[in-house]
Amino acid sequence: MKSLLIKDANIITQNEQREILRGDVLVEGNIIKRIGTVQGGADEVIDAKGDMLIPGLINTHNHVAMSIMKGVADDVPFPTFLERVFAIDSDRKDEDISIGAQLGLMEMVRSGTTTFVDLYYAEDIIAKAVVESGIRGVLCWAVLDQQYTTQEGVPLDNCKRFHQDHRDEARVTPGIGLQGVYVCSDETFQEAEDFSKRTGALMHFHLSETRKEVYDHKARTGMRPAEHLESIGVLSERCLAAHAAWLTINEVKALGRNGCSVSTCPVSNMKLATGGVAPLPEMFVNGVNVSIGTDGSTTNNSMDMMADMKMLALLQKCYRWDPTVLPAQQVLDLATIGGAKAVGMADSIGSIEIGKKADLVILDGKAPNLRPLRPATMVSNLVYSGNSSNIKTVICDGAVVLRDRKILTFDENEVLDRSEDAIRGLMERGRA
Amino acid sequence: MKSLLIKDANIITQNEQREILRGDVLVEGNIIKRIGTVQGGADEVIDAKGDMLIPGLINTHNHVAMSIMKGVADDVPFPTFLERVFAIDSDRKDEDISIGAQLGLMEMVRSGTTTFVDLYYAEDIIAKAVVESGIRGVLCWAVLDQQYTTQEGVPLDNCKRFHQDHRDEARVTPGIGLQGVYVCSDETFQEAEDFSKRTGALMHFHLSETRKEVYDHKARTGMRPAEHLESIGVLSERCLAAHAAWLTINEVKALGRNGCSVSTCPVSNMKLATGGVAPLPEMFVNGVNVSIGTDGSTTNNSMDMMADMKMLALLQKCYRWDPTVLPAQQVLDLATIGGAKAVGMADSIGSIEIGKKADLVILDGKAPNLRPLRPATMVSNLVYSGNSSNIKTVICDGAVVLRDRKILTFDENEVLDRSEDAIRGLMERGRA
Repeated sequence: MKSLLIKDANIITQNEQREILRGDVLVEGNIIKRIGTVQGGADEVIDAKGDMLIPGLINTHNHVAMSIMKGVADDVPFPTFLERVFAIDSDRKDEDISIGAQLGLMEMVRSGTTTFVDLYYAEDIIAKAVVESGIRGVLCWAVLDQQYTTQEGVPLDNCKRFHQDHRDEARVTPGIGLQGVYVCSDETFQEAEDFSKRTGALMHFHLSETRKEVYDHKARTGMRPAEHLESIGVLSERCLAAHAAWLTINEVKALGRNGCSVSTCPVSNMKLATGGVAPLPEMFVNGVNVSIGTDGSTTNNSMDMMADMKMLALLQKCYRWDPTVLPAQQVLDLATIGGAKAVGMADSIGSIEIGKKADLVILDGKAPNLRPLRPATMVSNLVYSGNSSNIKTVICDGAVVLRDRKILTFDENEVLDRSEDAIRGLMERGRA
Repeated sequence: MKSLLIKDANIITQNEQREILRGDVLVEGNIIKRIGTVQGGADEVIDAKGDMLIPGLINTHNHVAMSIMKGVADDVPFPTFLERVFAIDSDRKDEDISIGAQLGLMEMVRSGTTTFVDLYYAEDIIAKAVVESGIRGVLCWAVLDQQYTTQEGVPLDNCKRFHQDHRDEARVTPGIGLQGVYVCSDETFQEAEDFSKRTGALMHFHLSETRKEVYDHKARTGMRPAEHLESIGVLSERCLAAHAAWLTINEVKALGRNGCSVSTCPVSNMKLATGGVAPLPEMFVNGVNVSIGTDGSTTNNSMDMMADMKMLALLQKCYRWDPTVLPAQQVLDLATIGGAKAVGMADSIGSIEIGKKADLVILDGKAPNLRPLRPATMVSNLVYSGNSSNIKTVICDGAVVLRDRKILTFDENEVLDRSEDAIRGLMERGRA
């Protein structure tokens, strides 16, 4: 079994005591075996003297294949945005999805993400790119009512088939990606919940991103979306709701008492100017597990958890007129252990602890923006001063995927060139 | 005269037509001589094939020497913040200021800033670091009433002496740094204005950052701060107001009709949760020139204009519930030509045009987060997808200061180590 030794790092463990240690981490196979002072060598030794070592970041809401579409619908009203994105997106070919996924995966690796949640159709194509990338994907096949979909066949059947085919694949975890109450009937939600209960598959869905969808739903059903989902019995600890921006306190409580997780997407919400700000302080009080999502590249334009940690803290402080809301340590918690819990992997990822999977990110301790680097301010520097230029080396499942800022798993130049061809083709077809 | 040729870049010119060109830029001495296809060589040739070339970014509000204090007062109520920062800051020695300035300058270079505005005491020490760094500083010596200062002597006299000693220094532009209406009497403002009128020196001041300072001032004088400053005749095109967050429309108009500039500091305002959001749309309509400032490291924690461009756009969109507010091109305008105008250098910096100073930044066209890189989405990618990991090479005043991510002007490791010693000493003295 291959061993990997990381020497002399500032280890931000994210263990229960949130310890910051100075020392070594020994990995055997894909598992963290020792933390502290490790004598002797290993098959591979990485000198991380003075660097920061953190758990791989977990991005809990994305549409990774849309990365080639960044910039196509910025700074426009929301209806125009939807129209433009759907026009391009519905015309995509397998090759476009494949190259989009590869490009997005490279972006995530370079900014320290080792696990992400995706919601899209054609997750089988994305799964291939994930396997190749070396990082983890929780891939939630898009499920919606038959009359709204461009998928061939029944979406939930497609989702089940994807689950069947990929459930044993390394680093790929198939999930269910419910588009939202506006295109998913109660029956669709309930059938998905049956499948989730039986298999343990994550139920990932959009929830109350815009004010319009909330009030449309209320006009139609008499209930707000989260109350409604509770009333039909589909909320559980297997649920991960993206956005959750337009919630009442009663809906927050409903999510909390059913053990649900939320993926808050600050950049996406701000950029689309949908008005809602996820009520994180109330979620914390009411036992909702919170994690962070970048959302796809048409609404955020970067899949950069380093940037989004800071953005989230700033948005919450600004919105509440309270600088004590969401301190740096808590932001980092959401991006690591909160994310791990959201995808049902709290026992295996999200912190640097013996027995956990070796998903690790090394940040350059020689970067001026991270210095002075003292234990008292290390987490603060990571969240408020750090950026993805600091990401030097990324390890996932015990294997190095980015070494000294070079991606080892893809031919980067080839992906970059092909991404340009893909978007050009899409734009031309879009005009035709 | 030394010549420098940048080959085959995507040139975001920021000229009046906002042209994006593919081609070369020839620099002779410190001046841009040709843009387009340049035959022949030069003393130094930089291959920028497929890279992005932008004007150096201009950060119009900073306290650069505070960079060693990052993380010392995060996530605390505003009064606690002030108390903690002042306790440490008032005890600083020349060496601490010097090393803080060097560290902050390195942070700025690495994130593409070539000109910054500083407001602090001891600008003579900071000037030395600026000269060494290779970038430009508009250094505004802190001026406030005698009873509020820890400076030896009369602050305005110190400011004048600094101006006298440094006005002919390359890349250093001395200015007047008025702390704010809460510690500067009408006489102090008016004497500063006399000096500014005579010398052309920039009048840089904090304006209406917090709600409290606005209402305290109104209780004391019957007028809001900007109205008051207009009434005593000190507003002019030589004024640069930082923050300007808590303004009425009448105050915006006062700034506009007097030709003032504003430095909006989104991250600082959000992190301190001071509640105000600078009314940028109204400023644009009323002829106020707007630029972007990071503010110092205790309130932002990074001096990263690449990050703050995006943050500003998101804040404005989110606050106004309108995604069309502040599109990407306009954000870039604020960070370049808006900044140049704010410091009275619109004729010499802020865009890539023949005859202007060669302040240039090369961004890595091989970065996945910037791709696909098409002219139609290039500015959008820069603002919404870019980050400082993309900054490869920085040129200021015709000289390379960062080459392939290596700073040429400082011994980086030495500065980093000394920054650690400095903050340790300050914290120990603070405890004593």
